[in-house]
Amino acid sequence: MTGQERSEEKSECVSLSPMREAVPAPPECERVCVFGTGDLGRSLGLRLLQAGYGVVFGSRRPHSSSSLIPHGSQVLGHAAAAQSGHLIFIAVQREHYDFLVPLANQLKGKVLVDLSNNLRKNQYPEANAEYLQSLVPGAEVVKGFNTLSAWSLQKGPSDANRQVYICGESVQAKQAVMAVATKLGFSALDRGFLSVARELEDFPLQLFPQWRLPLYIATGLSAAFFFYLLIRDIIYAYFTQGKDISFRIMVSLANKVCPIVSLIMLSLCYLPGVLASFLQLYRGTKYRRFPDWLDRWMLCRKQLGLLALGFAFLHVLYTLIIPIRYYVRFKATERTVSVIRENRTTEFDTTTAWSGDSYLSLGILGFSLYVLLGITSLPSVSNVLSWREFSFIQSKLGHLTLLLCTAHTYLYGWNKFLSSSTYKWCTPPGYMLCLVLPSVVLLLKLLLITPCVDRTITRIRQGWERRADQRNPKNSQPLIP
Amino acid sequence: MTGQERSEEKSECVSLSPMREAVPAPPECERVCVFGTGDLGRSLGLRLLQAGYGVVFGSRRPHSSSSLIPHGSQVLGHAAAAQSGHLIFIAVQREHYDFLVPLANQLKGKVLVDLSNNLRKNQYPEANAEYLQSLVPGAEVVKGFNTLSAWSLQKGPSDANRQVYICGESVQAKQAVMAVATKLGFSALDRGFLSVARELEDFPLQLFPQWRLPLYIATGLSAAFFFYLLIRDIIYAYFTQGKDISFRIMVSLANKVCPIVSLIMLSLCYLPGVLASFLQLYRGTKYRRFPDWLDRWMLCRKQLGLLALGFAFLHVLYTLIIPIRYYVRFKATERTVSVIRENRTTEFDTTTAWSGDSYLSLGILGFSLYVLLGITSLPSVSNVLSWREFSFIQSKLGHLTLLLCTAHTYLYGWNKFLSSSTYKWCTPPGYMLCLVLPSVVLLLKLLLITPCVDRTITRIRQGWERRADQRNPKNSQPLIP
Amino acid sequence: MTGQERSEEKSECVSLSPMREAVPAPPECERVCVFGTGDLGRSLGLRLLQAGYGVVFGSRRPHSSSSLIPHGSQVLGHAAAAQSGHLIFIAVQREHYDFLVPLANQLKGKVLVDLSNNLRKNQYPEANAEYLQSLVPGAEVVKGFNTLSAWSLQKGPSDANRQVYICGESVQAKQAVMAVATKLGFSALDRGFLSVARELEDFPLQLFPQWRLPLYIATGLSAAFFFYLLIRDIIYAYFTQGKDISFRIMVSLANKVCPIVSLIMLSLCYLPGVLASFLQLYRGTKYRRFPDWLDRWMLCRKQLGLLALGFAFLHVLYTLIIPIRYYVRFKATERTVSVIRENRTTEFDTTTAWSGDSYLSLGILGFSLYVLLGITSLPSVSNVLSWREFSFIQSKLGHLTLLLCTAHTYLYGWNKFLSSSTYKWCTPPGYMLCLVLPSVVLLLKLLLITPCVDRTITRIRQGWERRADQRNPKNSQPLIP
Repeated sequence: MTGQERSEEKSECVSLSPMREAVPAPPECERVCVFGTGDLGRSLGLRLLQAGYGVVFGSRRPHSSSSLIPHGSQVLGHAAAAQSGHLIFIAVQREHYDFLVPLANQLKGKVLVDLSNNLRKNQYPEANAEYLQSLVPGAEVVKGFNTLSAWSLQKGPSDANRQVYICGESVQAKQAVMAVATKLGFSALDRGFLSVARELEDFPLQLFPQWRLPLYIATGLSAAFFFYLLIRDIIYAYFTQGKDISFRIMVSLANKVCPIVSLIMLSLCYLPGVLASFLQLYRGTKYRRFPDWLDRWMLCRKQLGLLALGFAFLHVLYTLIIPIRYYVRFKATERTVSVIRENRTTEFDTTTAWSGDSYLSLGILGFSLYVLLGITSLPSVSNVLSWREFSFIQSKLGHLTLLLCTAHTYLYGWNKFLSSSTYKWCTPPGYMLCLVLPSVVLLLKLLLITPCVDRTITRIRQGWERRADQRNPKNSQPLIP
Repeated sequence: MTGQERSEEKSECVSLSPMREAVPAPPECERVCVFGTGDLGRSLGLRLLQAGYGVVFGSRRPHSSSSLIPHGSQVLGHAAAAQSGHLIFIAVQREHYDFLVPLANQLKGKVLVDLSNNLRKNQYPEANAEYLQSLVPGAEVVKGFNTLSAWSLQKGPSDANRQVYICGESVQAKQAVMAVATKLGFSALDRGFLSVARELEDFPLQLFPQWRLPLYIATGLSAAFFFYLLIRDIIYAYFTQGKDISFRIMVSLANKVCPIVSLIMLSLCYLPGVLASFLQLYRGTKYRRFPDWLDRWMLCRKQLGLLALGFAFLHVLYTLIIPIRYYVRFKATERTVSVIRENRTTEFDTTTAWSGDSYLSLGILGFSLYVLLGITSLPSVSNVLSWREFSFIQSKLGHLTLLLCTAHTYLYGWNKFLSSSTYKWCTPPGYMLCLVLPSVVLLLKLLLITPCVDRTITRIRQGWERRADQRNPKNSQPLIP
Repeated sequence: MTGQERSEEKSECVSLSPMREAVPAPPECERVCVFGTGDLGRSLGLRLLQAGYGVVFGSRRPHSSSSLIPHGSQVLGHAAAAQSGHLIFIAVQREHYDFLVPLANQLKGKVLVDLSNNLRKNQYPEANAEYLQSLVPGAEVVKGFNTLSAWSLQKGPSDANRQVYICGESVQAKQAVMAVATKLGFSALDRGFLSVARELEDFPLQLFPQWRLPLYIATGLSAAFFFYLLIRDIIYAYFTQGKDISFRIMVSLANKVCPIVSLIMLSLCYLPGVLASFLQLYRGTKYRRFPDWLDRWMLCRKQLGLLALGFAFLHVLYTLIIPIRYYVRFKATERTVSVIRENRTTEFDTTTAWSGDSYLSLGILGFSLYVLLGITSLPSVSNVLSWREFSFIQSKLGHLTLLLCTAHTYLYGWNKFLSSSTYKWCTPPGYMLCLVLPSVVLLLKLLLITPCVDRTITRIRQGWERRADQRNPKNSQPLIP
């Protein structure tokens, strides 16, 4: 992504100061140099002027550029500009970096700050900053500021982008750049050596990469169950009884799809861990790579879980508004009226009360644990947890959540499993379908925590290998030197 | 704010250790010096003693002070005390700093830690630490620890104040101070040069400065709509029908004010961005400063949005308890009874069911997105987002939220807009009034995303200028050097 | 906790790369040394190889170990291995550290990274890293990486454990270790000197230490009130009327226990602060240590408050599902039917409507403030607050929350306090019992904020002492030098 394109990402562009209003820096101030007079270069220069730096632009055509640069700065040819400061910001696209090669002498010992980004990942074999370093080996290249747009440079730091990342080989060079960042109001974080540059350059390009797969799964599941239930509930009623109950799409159907997708996603979040354990049991070692699909699956468990929480949240809201619905209030009146008109007596059924209340109570407890899992996956909360605490919550409480939610669903349909009227057009209702996966996960997990299996798994995770053990009986011995 | 006043801010004061119990530090330990034997100085000294430092107090009247200082420390005159350590904490009010001038020789090369705060912002022309540096140019002044109260110094770090901020010119001096901070159990963060001192000194004084304007707006709007609806609903009913329905204030009225204020605040959160875009379109450049009111407005968008979320949260709770209310249950019974007694038949109206369910469903989806926006504005979450991700959520999802909530409100009153009974005393109901602003914002936004306007805006944000373009046709060319 | 045991904590073990697939490092790469070929040592070595380091294992029996180590690394005797790199990771249990004593010459000037953990707190008189330093005084010991398991070393950093903590005396040594950590993908944080090692070694052992006491209190209170209400509500009904209403356990009883425990825990959260103030008033000084029980109590206020919020959350959910319950719907129908059959007229009672709506409204406001308190206690939120803001929210808004929730409870039972039918078996209902503590806390707080008491407290917190004042009248004077 080039400097120009960066600025269009932000929807509201603000210029805190017009080009012509910047106060000229006092003569004794520190001077920095900016190569490039495009949007990014000019925005950076303006901000540097405002922070009290003297700014010298380097340009291929200094004369034609002089009308573009912020008032108070000056523009020179590259070689002359390079003399004027120790720090040089390179606000130029990577394709044009070769103009720096003939300047190698003037750039010797200077700190070059690479601000560039790319249009897509892996656009070039090496990071832009590493390429720059290879072109000008005598200079000290620091990657930084590239996570900022021209817009945020002009506007000054706000909540979302106060943090800038810096990397480079030279500690002195990095400290000089961090000092500038601090003066501009940013909070700079040293991320390490120049080899991290690639990661920093990929950062602004990403749009929820880890959320893609879970979002596709959620969308696919939602669509599939929506149409399945549309046919079973609404079209079936229309075909067999001629009734139009299409209004149920908005709430009743949504409130079936949400919990179903939520429960399936939650079990998808715990299934890969269980599969991995069985694979280790089967292989008798932990020192073998998992299949790629399993690795990728395990890496998106957090996202699967959070999406499941989102659907559960919708389910809760959809459930809580049930008594407000016109349809429900109408039915309640109708039921009471029919009791009176047909002069029936109503009988209180304790079993129904028990199962209904238990169903609600399990749902409430399950949802509360769900929310707890969600809160502990906030970065600031999980950072203060030790890994023993984190794994206690995410594994023990996570499986308990799955158990509660599965039991909640079983109780929902508790007396309908054997009734034939449940199976319209010979299809099982949605909640039965969604029970398959969580039941399997819970059964497998139950197997894993039986004492004998658990003992073997524990030994494998301590580094014991079934085959190596036969070859080398000393292996299981403790960490003596 | 002085050291003395600081301590009264914290409502619970704890002294972990009385002055007389501190164990004397072993003779070979590192010595630090504290100037000032007031509350702040004594608390700091006590904590330093507990962390294993030797502490020497400097006082104008060493003899009369000796009964005040913590057991295990000693008190000397300023000049003598300054000899005893490399680090000197200045726990003295700024007004008395001039006693340091005659000590310039003894303080040469020493690290002076300025702990002072002020009573209000801009109390003095320069930061206290900068003033201190100007008085004792030979010393290395470090600003720090001023965000701590005497109370938290005594009590030791807790969750809320583990972090201390440090700034100063000398890296060595800062590292020495950070080492002490670490030994005392704090986590020190280097914020840069001494020019940041002013910011650090303002930090303890602020009480939600960015929340003031949004809170005033929220209070004003709530009060205005409360009285408007009080007149329209309750006083109108009393005047025209003589009915006392004042009990509706507690829930019904609150549940009208909350969603109205929430929707207006949400549109106030997105209006400035739209206005800024139109201003840029009109001016044909992004390189001109916005009017001050627009700048200030844009800076409090996050707070406007979070307050809107708070009101939406109240609206959700007020809505969900509707079926529990005595009044609602009473009315339901009354309705059923009247159906029976008047021997009416009830007819199910599919259109009402559709609109009612859609209304609820839109509200649920809108609120869920609202909550998502709130979660992503948590500092720890927004920090891990790239700005592309952050702007996607806050802009795209934000406008979608506004759209859903506006549609929710339109559906609420869908068939009442044309009924004349809606306009009591010729005033429109509250939900109609609150629809004006969001409708305008959404219309303007719609205009902005039409292809031809969008193209122009994008070019402007890439740095293109309409007038400059005529003057200098090279301007729109890419970032070549 | 040893390296072996660490790995069993994590429930899902993943090996990203089998031992035999690691690519041999290029000859010119930097070499590091790992002492110990157990699980932890091998996992670390594998990860170092993958990050591009050359790895040399040190082993007591190099020949028998050679089959165990990752492909691409080599294994030597300890003395020979120590020559091959500047950095030596000690992946050996503390009991075996004495093998390092004879190597003192070879280890001179080397950086030794102590990765060890213990099985329990205070297992040894000094931290493992300090013990190591005492054995090899010529080396520079750095504690670090011990918060990682063998599992997370193999798998690479994930959300929960990207952070590693480092401490040690030598800045150079720490920077070298931090550079390795960065290359391995971790984010290293310098926690200070070697004296912090004990804290780092305790970190992986802890399982919510600060939550223990609050959790015990919550469990105890819940159990006590559960049985009390079980007897009063369900067993009483069974004995006196022979009715089986046991189904009420699931929702009705839960919805009584939750708010009761929540309100008591909330007042327990504010009681110690009030007690501490009165103790200071009584003693006339803040410079005396509080009793231990009060100190411990004050340290777990945050946890008490968060648990109270959890119970309040459950109470809200249990309340909101009331109208969905079979029992409630049955009763509503029955009531309407009886009105018709007995031909009664129903009369709307405005007082009931007022009190009911106020009760609900206070609960909603109280819960919203509760949630606000919870959000501001998230680490990332409380970190951006100044202590003035934090104390404003936690103290002022906290007491307001307690006031609202207490008023909510009073209104719940507003007309039942004097009715004798409320006192089944001469026991007061649960909500009356739970009102005692919050009422006491609020009364005491009211006393504390009366002007004359408040003035004295403020003076005491500014460092004024009643007795010292008599002895030394200069004490109350400001912080003059």
